[in-house]
Amino acid sequence: MVAGAAVVTDRRAFTESRISEKLSAYLDTHDFDGPTMVLDVDRALDNYRALAAGLAPAHIHYAVKANPEPQLIRRLVAAGCRFDAASRGEIALCLDAGAGADDISFGNTVKKPSDIVWARARGIDLFAADATEELDKLALHAPGARVYIRLLVEHSEADWPLSRKFGAPATEILGLMRYARAHGLNPVGISFHVGSQTRRAGMWKPVLSEAASVWAEARAEGFDMTVLNIGGGFPAFYGEEVEAPVAYGHGVMDLVREYFGEVEYVMAEPGRGLVADAGVISAEVLLVSRKRPSDIARWVYLDIGKFSGLAETMDEAIRYQFDTTADGGEMGPCVLAGPSCDSADVLYEKRPVMLPVALRAGDRVRILCTGAYTTTYSSVGFNGFEPLHVVCI
Amino acid sequence: MVAGAAVVTDRRAFTESRISEKLSAYLDTHDFDGPTMVLDVDRALDNYRALAAGLAPAHIHYAVKANPEPQLIRRLVAAGCRFDAASRGEIALCLDAGAGADDISFGNTVKKPSDIVWARARGIDLFAADATEELDKLALHAPGARVYIRLLVEHSEADWPLSRKFGAPATEILGLMRYARAHGLNPVGISFHVGSQTRRAGMWKPVLSEAASVWAEARAEGFDMTVLNIGGGFPAFYGEEVEAPVAYGHGVMDLVREYFGEVEYVMAEPGRGLVADAGVISAEVLLVSRKRPSDIARWVYLDIGKFSGLAETMDEAIRYQFDTTADGGEMGPCVLAGPSCDSADVLYEKRPVMLPVALRAGDRVRILCTGAYTTTYSSVGFNGFEPLHVVCI
Repeated sequence: MVAGAAVVTDRRAFTESRISEKLSAYLDTHDFDGPTMVLDVDRALDNYRALAAGLAPAHIHYAVKANPEPQLIRRLVAAGCRFDAASRGEIALCLDAGAGADDISFGNTVKKPSDIVWARARGIDLFAADATEELDKLALHAPGARVYIRLLVEHSEADWPLSRKFGAPATEILGLMRYARAHGLNPVGISFHVGSQTRRAGMWKPVLSEAASVWAEARAEGFDMTVLNIGGGFPAFYGEEVEAPVAYGHGVMDLVREYFGEVEYVMAEPGRGLVADAGVISAEVLLVSRKRPSDIARWVYLDIGKFSGLAETMDEAIRYQFDTTADGGEMGPCVLAGPSCDSADVLYEKRPVMLPVALRAGDRVRILCTGAYTTTYSSVGFNGFEPLHVVCI
Repeated sequence: MVAGAAVVTDRRAFTESRISEKLSAYLDTHDFDGPTMVLDVDRALDNYRALAAGLAPAHIHYAVKANPEPQLIRRLVAAGCRFDAASRGEIALCLDAGAGADDISFGNTVKKPSDIVWARARGIDLFAADATEELDKLALHAPGARVYIRLLVEHSEADWPLSRKFGAPATEILGLMRYARAHGLNPVGISFHVGSQTRRAGMWKPVLSEAASVWAEARAEGFDMTVLNIGGGFPAFYGEEVEAPVAYGHGVMDLVREYFGEVEYVMAEPGRGLVADAGVISAEVLLVSRKRPSDIARWVYLDIGKFSGLAETMDEAIRYQFDTTADGGEMGPCVLAGPSCDSADVLYEKRPVMLPVALRAGDRVRILCTGAYTTTYSSVGFNGFEPLHVVCI
């Protein structure tokens, strides 16, 4: 609670610099029937350009899974962005939005054979893998395709290091590259992921060092290493200061040059860092109550919860920031919960959220920096509630 | 892992008694394009009748949130079942399926004012509440309505006691009933929830004892206590033995009579216990790999995961049982993961699952007892994957 309170003190100042004028103006002048995520597509494009400038000469492959709004994808295509797709569905979306097959990598290390066939038939030529069994599928259904091997990172300094779900240990990478070559594929490089919310460029060092060793070994063995996929991990603002994208990008690329030298094709896959702060969710307070009159913490129930868009509050990992129509006066600690009858639909309880003492049912709440990983997590209709609405402006 | 293995030993025997012949036959003779939940509606109706017989004279209010398939709801209406609805959407569904307004309670203690107005206009007259602020809403938008106050249970023996999200402490219930009466509502009783997966009837004792004290106090003060809502918690089979529904129901109602005497209207809200074992998900293995050749545990990736229907694997709470087309030979421990690029999309890792050593990509997997809390949790399209398909048979 203390840690939360410390962040909240400067909330207004942060907020004003983090929400675009266009979003503010739109939210001030519109009502919403049910929770709605409003996405400022221009802001996302500004972020794209900042990341592209900072990370140049790396190519940006936007991680479509962060937010697949067709209008956003079309604008990104027009701006020259490339794409990292997790599935056949995302590839189809990018192609429909005008992306070329050469601009799309099929970055999921776990692919359905029929989806590989489908993607290959449409010209997709760059695939991820982290196991011989996946290389077998690619060799069969996409012979000759370029493939990069995903490294399982051991030394992440990210706020949320990833699980061991993806990637092969460093000791296995060379074997997988040999296996790919022996089976008629074209092993062109490696990928890795520094972990979600790597807040400062300097935090990339241990991971880049790990990856560079593998890279050097592969070159020494004669592999033509042309593709270095540095993945995502570009941070968004959830209450802790993060570096601005241009400076951050420069910092990362300085390190990439230091550890890898010149590389033919560096690709970066921002998702959250590109689109999170372009979105704000407008929600409504349904109930404010105390379990006992003497309780300090109130329970605040919103019309959006864990199963209607805020899945990333799982384990209270992402700490969203809130603006309310009752802001300005005294603040107090609140347990925040969603509208469903599911007792697990509690957003923040271990570390309560500071909200205005004056907050009442019917007040509006803006949940900031919610342009990434919200809309598509939303359930199809848990408890009879509609999925999170989206408006692109 | 040891605990898991102990369960798995008897898996075949359990499975055969838990999956209906109709489901088996259907699954044996059909292919599915993507993960699909097949629901044996007859089996759900059998469960309804067993629960109704066991719990008589209590009235069954099916917890619609467990599985809102319209075909199931229509059949339940025809069989005389009543309903517990969490939202306007669920009330509309029940009314559309032919339920009478008198057969539906609006059981969410957190309601949107406009939904109360809507429900009241359609004749809904029974509402849940656990706070004065919610009673204010009901007094304003549904004056004179019958209301029951939800008790926050302290002594659950369930596998998963609920969080503190719902209910008021015992010390507050009488005050809330007085508040309701003073504000023109009709306080008719109380509700509580023993917790999810209360596997044996005897485990209800401490909770019934808690609730009975409150009930007696309210009667002593002159409240006309006519509605006792004993909630849900009726178990499904996930690998640990549970009592059969008729015997379980008899056991619970014997205890209810012991603690409460004769009550005008007892209502029970089974969801999971009614529909879970009527459903089986047919899924596909996408990849089986080892991170290192020397690793004992394999990683098994399915085409369904935490965000496409198996949300209840959160914290590895629900332990689903699996049948595979490779069953019959040696078994070995597996970490089980979903198909998305989300590193949190891991189903079982702390306690690995025993699966056949012969399991390969392309094999079919049946996930048993998945008729409850799967389809509606499914995300609208996370990572570009379609929501879980449903077939009613």
